[in-house]
Amino acid sequence: MSSSSTSIENPGLALAQMRAGAPLVQNITNYVAMNIMANVMLAAGASPAMVHAAEEAPSFVEMAQALTINIGTLSAPWVESMAATAKAAHDSNTPWVFDPVAVGATAYRRDTATNLLAFKPSIIRGNASEIMALAGKDSMGKGVDSADGLENAMASADQLAHKTGAVIAVSGARDYVTDGQNRALIDNGHSLMPKVTALGCSLNGVIAAFAATHHAHWQATIAAMAYYGVAGEIAGQQAAGPGSFTVAFLDALATLDPDQLDQRAKIALR
Amino acid sequence: MSSSSTSIENPGLALAQMRAGAPLVQNITNYVAMNIMANVMLAAGASPAMVHAAEEAPSFVEMAQALTINIGTLSAPWVESMAATAKAAHDSNTPWVFDPVAVGATAYRRDTATNLLAFKPSIIRGNASEIMALAGKDSMGKGVDSADGLENAMASADQLAHKTGAVIAVSGARDYVTDGQNRALIDNGHSLMPKVTALGCSLNGVIAAFAATHHAHWQATIAAMAYYGVAGEIAGQQAAGPGSFTVAFLDALATLDPDQLDQRAKIALR
Amino acid sequence: MSSSSTSIENPGLALAQMRAGAPLVQNITNYVAMNIMANVMLAAGASPAMVHAAEEAPSFVEMAQALTINIGTLSAPWVESMAATAKAAHDSNTPWVFDPVAVGATAYRRDTATNLLAFKPSIIRGNASEIMALAGKDSMGKGVDSADGLENAMASADQLAHKTGAVIAVSGARDYVTDGQNRALIDNGHSLMPKVTALGCSLNGVIAAFAATHHAHWQATIAAMAYYGVAGEIAGQQAAGPGSFTVAFLDALATLDPDQLDQRAKIALR
Repeated sequence: MSSSSTSIENPGLALAQMRAGAPLVQNITNYVAMNIMANVMLAAGASPAMVHAAEEAPSFVEMAQALTINIGTLSAPWVESMAATAKAAHDSNTPWVFDPVAVGATAYRRDTATNLLAFKPSIIRGNASEIMALAGKDSMGKGVDSADGLENAMASADQLAHKTGAVIAVSGARDYVTDGQNRALIDNGHSLMPKVTALGCSLNGVIAAFAATHHAHWQATIAAMAYYGVAGEIAGQQAAGPGSFTVAFLDALATLDPDQLDQRAKIALR
Repeated sequence: MSSSSTSIENPGLALAQMRAGAPLVQNITNYVAMNIMANVMLAAGASPAMVHAAEEAPSFVEMAQALTINIGTLSAPWVESMAATAKAAHDSNTPWVFDPVAVGATAYRRDTATNLLAFKPSIIRGNASEIMALAGKDSMGKGVDSADGLENAMASADQLAHKTGAVIAVSGARDYVTDGQNRALIDNGHSLMPKVTALGCSLNGVIAAFAATHHAHWQATIAAMAYYGVAGEIAGQQAAGPGSFTVAFLDALATLDPDQLDQRAKIALR
Repeated sequence: MSSSSTSIENPGLALAQMRAGAPLVQNITNYVAMNIMANVMLAAGASPAMVHAAEEAPSFVEMAQALTINIGTLSAPWVESMAATAKAAHDSNTPWVFDPVAVGATAYRRDTATNLLAFKPSIIRGNASEIMALAGKDSMGKGVDSADGLENAMASADQLAHKTGAVIAVSGARDYVTDGQNRALIDNGHSLMPKVTALGCSLNGVIAAFAATHHAHWQATIAAMAYYGVAGEIAGQQAAGPGSFTVAFLDALATLDPDQLDQRAKIALR
């Protein structure tokens, strides 16, 4: 059995490795996501640091085992810092995850995203509309929510993988992960997840933590997304709405064990 | 029965219309409120987008069905962006809600608020102290919390409505909504609501979502505030303190149905 | 019995005084902490105001009964505002709490912290690694989490107290509070507390609120930390993970009464 199939069949091992490593992950994320993202990462077992200022973010990469960049709430000083920090990650071979939030909405976001692609993100995660927009397709996304189906986005994801060399993760009711050669669909998750703000943004940090402690980005991404989705399913069983869902989700991220993950993960090669 | 009285007697219809429309509402809000405001709006059934940078906020108004501006955490770049975005909303007839947080506390807030009034907010929401300060009265507000009673603020609210052409909403234990001609009191809510930060700020987004999907701002505001208060009452019945209140409040916003709202709303013409 | 020992034996009295005073506390804190810090302070019974802009933060100090400054997420305009606001607190004898987050991680943080010490913070609170780094010792802190034990940090804390004239609070599984002459250990708390982001930052606001309503900073700090730890213990008994812990913690902060605090506080002179 190849190491590739092992990881897809056993995402629990990737979870155990991540928790054992407790990687320090630096995050340049948006104001909406900062708190919940840090809480999600702590619950999962990683060590998050929200460090974004141009004066320190590039040098902080030296300490970090992975980096995430999210363009959710942009401003000129942050755009500058994102580029310098992405460059530092690229130059030091630190894995980094890019989230092109609402990239189709404004020229400012498109330009920022295009510039960041030059620093070769390891993994790009977005919803269907964002991945299509980043690949240059027309999308129907309004604001930050996706209006396009996964079927329309899969070809765009493959193209984007070829063009950028990154693993592309399309998250939604069903998730799709591709490196252009290998493709998988993940069928875990819960319908309340998009009713809680910034859970997609927070997933970036979990993917980065898995990537920091795993030899292959494609497999790390799949394991992280299955873990996230299974925790969502467990939370959904206890929730009476989006408020109680969030509480139960954080608890499930912390208490889900590798064996449960292996049993409940629904990962299919495509 | 006039359309006006219909909406006051049946706030549930306004709720159903808002959920059916799921309006995209752009928010320039403070750092404290961003996450809970987005979660409140998602729970209610709206589609929030937190977009504040001067480089993109004015042009984003074209996509949005309503806008909110809150001066809770100011800085020079944001003040500039608020003005340009309020102008864009005004020029495109997009309804917008203004929240003059702690306007009486510093000259910086007073000047910013005065400038924004030039762009004719559709609705102004604040606590009693804020509405009095914005109307030019002496208020006793310390910081962001109100120290004045509703009775003192009602005349100020009417004056502000006449002066600005906006619907004025004074929120507190009892809410007051006036357009200068029509006045209503709303007696829903729970004593734990002011013990959770930024629930007032978050209400702006709910009012904006109702205003985006209703023909009249005065009625939309009343319906939104009754909805918010009833959700607070339901949450209060289950809460052991401000932490569990917040969880139950988000659940109640998501699960409260229009019939329940009609039955529990306490709206009285004044 | 001296007033000093009274307060250590009866932290409940300090809690009752704080709630009776409901002090307005101004906070310049990081983006991750803003919401939970305000909620923690409201639950405790204080009145928080998050005011950080250089245009208004120094003048807002006139209204505030205490101030906190936290360098968690720095940027050039904030660094400038922190200095001007710390100076305003110093000049007006307003008690202020300084939190040197991750001070050992980057030169930018070290320089900012060093500059702020010139304005004589009343209380400095950090984890073991941060207190050691601020005292000029080598620490093993990675990012924002502590990697050093309390035993190593106690001598640094005493030195820092002598050098700065501040009360030094080292928080961790066991807390240590020293003014260089008087020393105490506090053994309350719960293992889930470091799994929730920004609970340390939020504690700054509670300490500031106690300091605003108590005649002695050393005793106020001890009482605040015991109160925080006991609330954590109560929450821990009901929690299934970090999500439910946070909810129960906010509830416990609001409902813990002075008698319970006196019974459960574990404070020992050292």
